[in-house]
Amino acid sequence: MTTADHIGVFDSGVGGLTVLRELVRALPGKRFVYLGDTARVPYGTKSAETVVKYALGAARVLADRAQLGALVVACNTASAVALDALRSALAVPVFGVIEPGAAAGVAATRVGRVAVLATPATIASRAYEHAIHALDRRVRVFGIACPLFVPLAEAGWVDDDVARLVAERYLHPIVNGTARDVDTVILGCTHYPLLDRVIRRTVGRGRRVVDSASATAADVALALGAVTASRARARAHIEVLVTDRAMGVAETARRFFGDSVGRIARVDL
Amino acid sequence: MTTADHIGVFDSGVGGLTVLRELVRALPGKRFVYLGDTARVPYGTKSAETVVKYALGAARVLADRAQLGALVVACNTASAVALDALRSALAVPVFGVIEPGAAAGVAATRVGRVAVLATPATIASRAYEHAIHALDRRVRVFGIACPLFVPLAEAGWVDDDVARLVAERYLHPIVNGTARDVDTVILGCTHYPLLDRVIRRTVGRGRRVVDSASATAADVALALGAVTASRARARAHIEVLVTDRAMGVAETARRFFGDSVGRIARVDL
Repeated sequence: MTTADHIGVFDSGVGGLTVLRELVRALPGKRFVYLGDTARVPYGTKSAETVVKYALGAARVLADRAQLGALVVACNTASAVALDALRSALAVPVFGVIEPGAAAGVAATRVGRVAVLATPATIASRAYEHAIHALDRRVRVFGIACPLFVPLAEAGWVDDDVARLVAERYLHPIVNGTARDVDTVILGCTHYPLLDRVIRRTVGRGRRVVDSASATAADVALALGAVTASRARARAHIEVLVTDRAMGVAETARRFFGDSVGRIARVDL
Repeated sequence: MTTADHIGVFDSGVGGLTVLRELVRALPGKRFVYLGDTARVPYGTKSAETVVKYALGAARVLADRAQLGALVVACNTASAVALDALRSALAVPVFGVIEPGAAAGVAATRVGRVAVLATPATIASRAYEHAIHALDRRVRVFGIACPLFVPLAEAGWVDDDVARLVAERYLHPIVNGTARDVDTVILGCTHYPLLDRVIRRTVGRGRRVVDSASATAADVALALGAVTASRARARAHIEVLVTDRAMGVAETARRFFGDSVGRIARVDL
């Protein structure tokens, strides 16, 4: 792993930046190249077949751009349906966000009941259920598809009355329905931490809200650990690419990383 | 035009079916092939360059599928930015929805002030302003971008409290802001007629709400008129294609056209 040059990271849009932020914290001094596939966002309302095709295309763009030492699929939908295809296609380690998110959920629950908020494609794949049951068969999993959270996050409507009303609609099963006994809510889409505040307020203080970002970063750091330690004080080097103009990605990248991000380049897919 | 076999119609998703419905009424007995580019929906938040590329790809799929006598771009975003490119690429007449929508708005206003509700890409193109001013330079045009209306329409949340709140937010300039003197509202995106009821309720009864669907169909019928008359009692023949699985398209197509629509085929792009 010491020849690892860049860590490639991709998502359908702005959401994966929440994972990149944790990766940069966990792996200071590393070089990152991030792709937001904004020409084809969202992924989560599309079929598995289409998402596999898009994920392979995104990985190809990153591999053409830089010598990759690892690829992080910072998108739950792509992690749920395209991880095997990506591992077959690439010669480097490929990390997804489902298993770390599932592990965070299993670690957090005391009553053995968790809710997973995710895109329709991720919920349909049952990927969280399988990953959670691989860790602990006794945990009950309630999947809730929240398709409008991605356009809300991309539009920047993340903490207002519309976001609140949409959250109340989707999260009703947790607040006062079939999932009301859960004590842990997994944000199973990397866009959803951008709506973190409104989601926490809706499900109430008594419930823990976890996401896969920091757990994924810890997994990747463990795998690439030897390289990291020697550069612990170095500055991150982050290149951000998009497949279409995307104000949201530029703004969020600057907010998260400041000057560490150079000019955001547009690439063709 | 008498050799015209099929009329090709395309949109990014379900919205163009509102135009197809009017075309079927205006041109009974005609053969239609419709493409919903659901693998890449939405178009309206993407750049002009990307939308041109997608529109050319959609036209190619339709031309490969059937002998086209005409192409109707049943998507305002693509009509706003890709019409010239499509006309250069195709040997058949290409109809857009902007000019008919603009004409409907100019015909409807008594005070010479209209609002155009459309996607960010259509508003940025100023295509409605140009089309309206080509008809009447004195009409004042207020453009309002409503990016969340497309995901709401695709999700089927078209007449509920979320749709109402989103409409109130976007339409505030009309209800009580800089555009409050308009008497006419143009639905400048073919998805928006699906939210017709909530939009009408929000802007109030005193204002007329028009869209381009029936005006576009009348333009196309006029151009292909001779063929039509002789088949006035024939049944429509409608083939619907999608680039990805899309429940919304299937449901809306059956609701609009019943048995006239065969199996909905998925095509690759």
